[in-house]
Amino acid sequence: MRYPDHLSKIIQVLKRLPGVGNKSAERFAFHLLTWPEEQLKELGAVVASAKEQLKHCSSCGCLMDSAGCLFCLSPKRNPNILCVLASPKDVFSIEETHSYDGLYHVLGGLLSPLERMGPEHLSLDMLKERLVHHQVKEVVIALDSTLEGDATALFLKQELENYPLQISRLAFGLPMGSSLDYVDGGTLARALSGRGDF
Amino acid sequence: MRYPDHLSKIIQVLKRLPGVGNKSAERFAFHLLTWPEEQLKELGAVVASAKEQLKHCSSCGCLMDSAGCLFCLSPKRNPNILCVLASPKDVFSIEETHSYDGLYHVLGGLLSPLERMGPEHLSLDMLKERLVHHQVKEVVIALDSTLEGDATALFLKQELENYPLQISRLAFGLPMGSSLDYVDGGTLARALSGRGDF
Repeated sequence: MRYPDHLSKIIQVLKRLPGVGNKSAERFAFHLLTWPEEQLKELGAVVASAKEQLKHCSSCGCLMDSAGCLFCLSPKRNPNILCVLASPKDVFSIEETHSYDGLYHVLGGLLSPLERMGPEHLSLDMLKERLVHHQVKEVVIALDSTLEGDATALFLKQELENYPLQISRLAFGLPMGSSLDYVDGGTLARALSGRGDF
Repeated sequence: MRYPDHLSKIIQVLKRLPGVGNKSAERFAFHLLTWPEEQLKELGAVVASAKEQLKHCSSCGCLMDSAGCLFCLSPKRNPNILCVLASPKDVFSIEETHSYDGLYHVLGGLLSPLERMGPEHLSLDMLKERLVHHQVKEVVIALDSTLEGDATALFLKQELENYPLQISRLAFGLPMGSSLDYVDGGTLARALSGRGDF
């Protein structure tokens, strides 16, 4: 015997979430059935209206709600420094450090020939326009330390080399609180070559 | 800086799912923003209408959609044997074994003084009514092997002892494919005392 149709449908839809397989989706679905009616309607409504409520800023690509872009509109942010990231989620990781007060630029992805992500999918034109418009003095490349991240960082460096600005990239080294025993050789080599005065 | 309001709301709502904390809810929420509009609407709709589409059978407590209860209405099920379970989800676990063709009775929970689940929260009256109506010959208790499951099984046994029927409970023993090394003492003791001819 299979699940009732509607239950199968809920499970199928929930399986589209990242890292959610059959078992988790079933668990979620049966849990949903124990929720009060108004909570189900609430979940339904906030998800269904997600795209209408949350837009990407046409200038920097960050997420914004109806109040407008919290970065581009803020007078407190330093417009001379621009942090380049792959996705809007990364913006919040940087914000949580409370160590950065410049503006952001979301590329919208990383170069990846396998996933057919070419330079035309990245918001490069807008980036170049903003470099000139804001008289940007420094671009901080905050991309993943993966094959795709490295490739995209190199590509960006080439694309921006004719602009009168400083290009930096996030430092590589030991994660805080880590023991040397558990750090891989590549990271240790980068930590050594990048060692600083103490 | 916090997330835009609507994003925080999605995250709050998703955190109500079992085993979903802040990190997973954030991951889900950002993933949802990459879905096409129609998939968001679909998720919204199937969740919001879950309670309307999926009812519990008033007789056995199993989940059913508009087609009616797949068990109570089926002429192929043996009405003389009744399997008693805690939740509608357990029904599907038993069905998947393809080893049972009787009817089900969902109690709706397990006795648990800590969670204030008393006998009045279990569908006992309906169970007794069905025992008489279907002339049930055997009741199979398929409850968890936990403190609450054991207490509920004992309680059921007392409640039903005056009915002319056989009461059985799922067997305890080694899980299939397990090595003796990894089986706990309690399970091994039950497997020993319940050993059968080979």
